[in-house]
Amino acid sequence: MSLKKTIANYFDDEKGNAKGEAFLEYFISVLILINVLAIILESYQSIYTKYKFVFTFIELFSIIIFSTEYIIRIWVSDLIYPKLSPTKARLKYIFSFMGIVDLASILPFYLPFIVTLDLRIIRLLRLFRLLRVLKLNRNFKSLAVIRSVIVKTKNEILVSAILVFILLIIASTLMFYIENKAQPEAFENIGQALWWAVATLTTVGYGDIYPITGLGKVMSAVIALLGIGFVALPTGIISSAYIEEIRNLKKSQQCFCPHCNKEIIE
Amino acid sequence: MSLKKTIANYFDDEKGNAKGEAFLEYFISVLILINVLAIILESYQSIYTKYKFVFTFIELFSIIIFSTEYIIRIWVSDLIYPKLSPTKARLKYIFSFMGIVDLASILPFYLPFIVTLDLRIIRLLRLFRLLRVLKLNRNFKSLAVIRSVIVKTKNEILVSAILVFILLIIASTLMFYIENKAQPEAFENIGQALWWAVATLTTVGYGDIYPITGLGKVMSAVIALLGIGFVALPTGIISSAYIEEIRNLKKSQQCFCPHCNKEIIE
Amino acid sequence: MSLKKTIANYFDDEKGNAKGEAFLEYFISVLILINVLAIILESYQSIYTKYKFVFTFIELFSIIIFSTEYIIRIWVSDLIYPKLSPTKARLKYIFSFMGIVDLASILPFYLPFIVTLDLRIIRLLRLFRLLRVLKLNRNFKSLAVIRSVIVKTKNEILVSAILVFILLIIASTLMFYIENKAQPEAFENIGQALWWAVATLTTVGYGDIYPITGLGKVMSAVIALLGIGFVALPTGIISSAYIEEIRNLKKSQQCFCPHCNKEIIE
Amino acid sequence: MSLKKTIANYFDDEKGNAKGEAFLEYFISVLILINVLAIILESYQSIYTKYKFVFTFIELFSIIIFSTEYIIRIWVSDLIYPKLSPTKARLKYIFSFMGIVDLASILPFYLPFIVTLDLRIIRLLRLFRLLRVLKLNRNFKSLAVIRSVIVKTKNEILVSAILVFILLIIASTLMFYIENKAQPEAFENIGQALWWAVATLTTVGYGDIYPITGLGKVMSAVIALLGIGFVALPTGIISSAYIEEIRNLKKSQQCFCPHCNKEIIE
Repeated sequence: MSLKKTIANYFDDEKGNAKGEAFLEYFISVLILINVLAIILESYQSIYTKYKFVFTFIELFSIIIFSTEYIIRIWVSDLIYPKLSPTKARLKYIFSFMGIVDLASILPFYLPFIVTLDLRIIRLLRLFRLLRVLKLNRNFKSLAVIRSVIVKTKNEILVSAILVFILLIIASTLMFYIENKAQPEAFENIGQALWWAVATLTTVGYGDIYPITGLGKVMSAVIALLGIGFVALPTGIISSAYIEEIRNLKKSQQCFCPHCNKEIIE
Repeated sequence: MSLKKTIANYFDDEKGNAKGEAFLEYFISVLILINVLAIILESYQSIYTKYKFVFTFIELFSIIIFSTEYIIRIWVSDLIYPKLSPTKARLKYIFSFMGIVDLASILPFYLPFIVTLDLRIIRLLRLFRLLRVLKLNRNFKSLAVIRSVIVKTKNEILVSAILVFILLIIASTLMFYIENKAQPEAFENIGQALWWAVATLTTVGYGDIYPITGLGKVMSAVIALLGIGFVALPTGIISSAYIEEIRNLKKSQQCFCPHCNKEIIE
Repeated sequence: MSLKKTIANYFDDEKGNAKGEAFLEYFISVLILINVLAIILESYQSIYTKYKFVFTFIELFSIIIFSTEYIIRIWVSDLIYPKLSPTKARLKYIFSFMGIVDLASILPFYLPFIVTLDLRIIRLLRLFRLLRVLKLNRNFKSLAVIRSVIVKTKNEILVSAILVFILLIIASTLMFYIENKAQPEAFENIGQALWWAVATLTTVGYGDIYPITGLGKVMSAVIALLGIGFVALPTGIISSAYIEEIRNLKKSQQCFCPHCNKEIIE
Repeated sequence: MSLKKTIANYFDDEKGNAKGEAFLEYFISVLILINVLAIILESYQSIYTKYKFVFTFIELFSIIIFSTEYIIRIWVSDLIYPKLSPTKARLKYIFSFMGIVDLASILPFYLPFIVTLDLRIIRLLRLFRLLRVLKLNRNFKSLAVIRSVIVKTKNEILVSAILVFILLIIASTLMFYIENKAQPEAFENIGQALWWAVATLTTVGYGDIYPITGLGKVMSAVIALLGIGFVALPTGIISSAYIEEIRNLKKSQQCFCPHCNKEIIE
């Protein structure tokens, strides 16, 4: 087996060369974690000024690793999609979801050489590296199931979201008319009332805005209690889709009687 | 095909002329969104005084569109319900849920010409336009499933609500006797205690009212923990109904007797 | 049919004389609601002193109705349990759950004639009338399903509760050692920390007590995230039991092929 | 039956000598509860100084009971695992999960004789006694089901946790850039923003940190609404696994091939 083939095996997400992959995955996971920690810690002014060179080193090291990986993946993509012509295989990788994630996570380093960018936007772009964690092999299958469930229930979830939206608008308009006189500052406009409605329906309840009139409290209680129902609805939808998904995965594996070898259809 | 028939096809919610409908739906969705935004922004005093003419224009434009739609729907309703006499078909549309929604969303404009109304009530009536979003074809089927689930579980949901109600009353009465001495202002009466009980059971917890005595805290902890159960109960009920509903939809496709192989229509 | 039999039919919870029952149920529901409202409103000092005679009237009226019902139920219980001797039938009713609820809801009126009681205890006893709402026929079946689900899952729910209890104790002990130095007043002892732990795990979050140290915030975040799991666990258990219960109810109705009349075992 | 055998029967968690066990379980449960109460009450400075001798007595009494139990369990472990050699049986018990729990719960008393330890660490170690409650026979089966569900769903739960983690990091980075200027103290760094993100996504909402800018409120609303979905996801996963688990437990009873009627052991 040529060197290129060996390398391609390492980077083939679907096959997965058990031993080598495990180490590579572990290494990438740690690197992503370090990157996330760096982004968080850089926001502490005192830490940033003191350990600036450490952050620069982490950034350079990560860029070298991720850039190398990106180039290798382009190089070996003709072996991973052997049915396509080399050019098409490369384009397929570059424009795949994972290819874009790979590019986005190295871009914040190279972009400043081309255009002038706000430091904050660069930092935000670096967050794309976080998405790489989803590429890890062991997460891949579970993610596929979750994605499939979300795709299948997207219509019901959308309708639930619309119902929530309608409820929020109606509740906040009513609340604005109820509380505006008693608390002209807190419930200054429907926008403020909408902020209260979201905090109540989702049961977050920061406590920065709440009704003080009797009618407002009754209204608030109704919204909070309906909030329970609006947690129950998507939960029921997702549970139901999840159960179907798991059952379909099982059914797709045919089942035979161990005595007479005939297929059993349950 | 006559012009009337073509138009009727556009407005037939059950058939749905794919191409034309899609554009009409998109247009109506955007119009509803603009209306909702207008209602919210009008409540900002400074924005309202500055851009009053924009709001007037949006209102006039919407009224023209929605009124035209309402008249067309009345006009073509005899083609949509061909089995009924024209008069009956028209009455059927006018008194259908969707007909009432259509009327309610244009009424706030015409009513002031007939009777004197508070501006606030007119604005509230305009919120009915929001319900039009549920009429959009793509939401129709999912909404039907959700409605069917709610209808089928209404008895269990009612009993859950009664149990919650009993728990709230008992908890707030007890809490009133426990906390009244320590916080005579916060827990002034059972009404106030009820406000606390709802905020605790639904886990909103604004923080404007909470127990300070030891016994009150124990009571509060019990209610909060029971609150988890009272989220779990309706969720379980709705999940279960949802699973049955999806399974029934599948079963209704076709089903054969395992003995004589004839189709069974349940 | 004798008068006694006609009356017995009215009060037989299992048969349920449709027409008469419906009116009786409606009447009792309204009476219970008035009683609950009276208990709440009595706690408003100003309302109580002003409308004392109204509350006295409601109390007297309710006592007459509920006492009459209690006596009638004892009287006709031999017809409701025809297989038992009259004495046994009466004792069976008196010591049944519903018989005790019936007695408890009239006791607060008669007790002060026998022993001296705190007014607060009498009021609390009057809350028992609330439980009568569960006796209403239409709620009976759904309540039975919910009770059956709770009974079947009681072991799992108990173990979940024990796990929550262990987590709460461990979290509050750790939090006490972490936050005690920074906030000696808020986290004065493990009892206070336990109050924080419950408010966090149930996601109530009143905001009267929360960590301010970095380690405390990390701990708090972990508990809050685990809280999601501890909502998911009982919900999953109850959903699962609910689905089984509904399926068993369906299975217990035998199913036959409409063509060949043989039983179909799915 | 020899004395050792009788004792072994008492301590065999899998067989369970009904009568004796019940009493022993009851006794141990009460003792654990007393221990937990003691740990909590000791943290109240005033109670500790006043009733120090009571706490010392409880500790000594518990240590004697738990130490005796530990020695007996080592002694009889050769009868409980009769297939192993006595030494192996003893080691098996000592290094089993339950053996470690048993040791950990007596260690805090003996350790100070060997090494110098912080009093706080000793108290934390004493919390291990709480885990003994899981060893009680009646909890054992339900715990096994719950553990099995958690083990089976661990991949999906992990991926959900990763998705939550990614969402938290992205939300807090964005929020830091949005709110930092308006509230430089509250949103001083991404760490603080992360604390806000957890409190919002889990819907705890203490109210010590929340957005005040318009954009920040929109962001917060989105996170809070997504929080509902992130409660729904693990709930759906766990519900689904729970339903499968209960069904498998039922199926494992007996199953026959519909073609040749022989039993199938899956």
